[in-house]
Amino acid sequence: MVAVEFAKSPAETLKVDSGFTLASVDPESTPGYTGNKVDGKALLGAQDDRLAELQEQLFAEGKFGSDKRLLLILQAMDTAGKGGIVSHVVGAMDPQGVHLTAFKAPTDEEKAHDFLWRIEKQVPAAGMVGVFDRSQYEDVLIHRVHAWADAKELERRYAAINDFEARLTEQGTTIVKVMLNISKDEQKERLIARLDDPSKHWKYSRGDLTERAHWDDYMKAYEAAFAETSTDTAPWHVVPANKKWYARIAVQELLLEALRGMSLDWPKAEFDVAAERALVAES
Amino acid sequence: MVAVEFAKSPAETLKVDSGFTLASVDPESTPGYTGNKVDGKALLGAQDDRLAELQEQLFAEGKFGSDKRLLLILQAMDTAGKGGIVSHVVGAMDPQGVHLTAFKAPTDEEKAHDFLWRIEKQVPAAGMVGVFDRSQYEDVLIHRVHAWADAKELERRYAAINDFEARLTEQGTTIVKVMLNISKDEQKERLIARLDDPSKHWKYSRGDLTERAHWDDYMKAYEAAFAETSTDTAPWHVVPANKKWYARIAVQELLLEALRGMSLDWPKAEFDVAAERALVAES
Repeated sequence: MVAVEFAKSPAETLKVDSGFTLASVDPESTPGYTGNKVDGKALLGAQDDRLAELQEQLFAEGKFGSDKRLLLILQAMDTAGKGGIVSHVVGAMDPQGVHLTAFKAPTDEEKAHDFLWRIEKQVPAAGMVGVFDRSQYEDVLIHRVHAWADAKELERRYAAINDFEARLTEQGTTIVKVMLNISKDEQKERLIARLDDPSKHWKYSRGDLTERAHWDDYMKAYEAAFAETSTDTAPWHVVPANKKWYARIAVQELLLEALRGMSLDWPKAEFDVAAERALVAES
Repeated sequence: MVAVEFAKSPAETLKVDSGFTLASVDPESTPGYTGNKVDGKALLGAQDDRLAELQEQLFAEGKFGSDKRLLLILQAMDTAGKGGIVSHVVGAMDPQGVHLTAFKAPTDEEKAHDFLWRIEKQVPAAGMVGVFDRSQYEDVLIHRVHAWADAKELERRYAAINDFEARLTEQGTTIVKVMLNISKDEQKERLIARLDDPSKHWKYSRGDLTERAHWDDYMKAYEAAFAETSTDTAPWHVVPANKKWYARIAVQELLLEALRGMSLDWPKAEFDVAAERALVAES
């Protein structure tokens, strides 16, 4: 069976341009993809090996002096499926080449530093795929919603983030920024589903409901962040996420496109292959 | 199809007891397993979900105050398949719950500290699965082979390792120590295979041949390490690894048994489920 592929690239259809509003996109939609859930799941499985191969080439090049690296930034409302992206998309890559960081509420030590201090420590090394489950954007999202930062400080942070990401890009990092976009109704269904399944109770936090009450403020905070930080070198992508299977293939495709854009190849041997072969054979 | 399971547990058949010698085990053998390669690959796939579920329970318990954690220590001669264990066995678990560390030659900062300093920083947190690709044992293996440490210092290190592992165990860590055991001939074949495949050249290091020349000394160093550090709480397992498929199911089974031994379960909700459900429904 040949898997149904994307008709139009998510890198184009899901990219956030100026004037973007969340109201203009339907979290139930599947932009650029004509297949159904069965097709989508088949595509996810079919592309796993290709993703793993490109990631291995990135890793291999990193061992031979390349400064290329990939950074996936995941932001979303609770239950939107960040964890599923990590296990079902990122999980197909070799754990050796992936550096995953789940940013929680900052520690006292982290709070005593600039908000980018803890982020800088987790950026991917050469050859690595970094994955941020939440990120520096928490400092312009939840901080804006709860007014923990005023307008002037938020402006400083947007600019600092842009400078930071520009520096990463100049160092060889390709940045893929993804907001998983679920609807408020879908979140309600998922929270109830968690409460109805005892094996999911541990995932439920009473704090989720507190943040849910600020839904509209969050959407405004996301739109402000997109307007300030969706740059040419590190654009945002808003991925409709009510359908988990679509969100997964869309993020997988964004990663594949990012890796394809890096012109990866297997490093050439820096030794005389025939001579080494003879030495091994004699050993 | 029902997968062929282990007839005898690798936790028993592969465990290193006193008086163990590497000469007494055949790297081609498949102890406790009567199936063939096809059966083994089917078993590996069939057990993936169970391994992932147990790991998720471990992770979930960690969020609810449990101090349980799992540490897999992998040691082996080059090409023995540590990387394959990481990608094919560990890779089935959720990346969020796995903390992998590949220990390389120590940095200057690391060398300025006791050998356990860099190890301590990477032990798994509560609820996590830690994986060490190489470990504190390098300091009693390569250091012994090249006489970078004298007999007295080696004795100090064995004792320090035992104390360190006993402390981890008392803190709730289950330690699974694995030596992947390939034959010298099998290593030669694998090195030549790497040289014959341009997509594998990046994995070949001329240093591999240097260490290969000390094969017998390495085997003695492993036996000494087993004799000194295969304890009741943290025994070594020597896994025949000429057949990659066998090594993978054996390590998978060791992990499954370790996790089963932790009496894991889904944490009980610390909130009133019905009350929360009503709040969510109203929100």
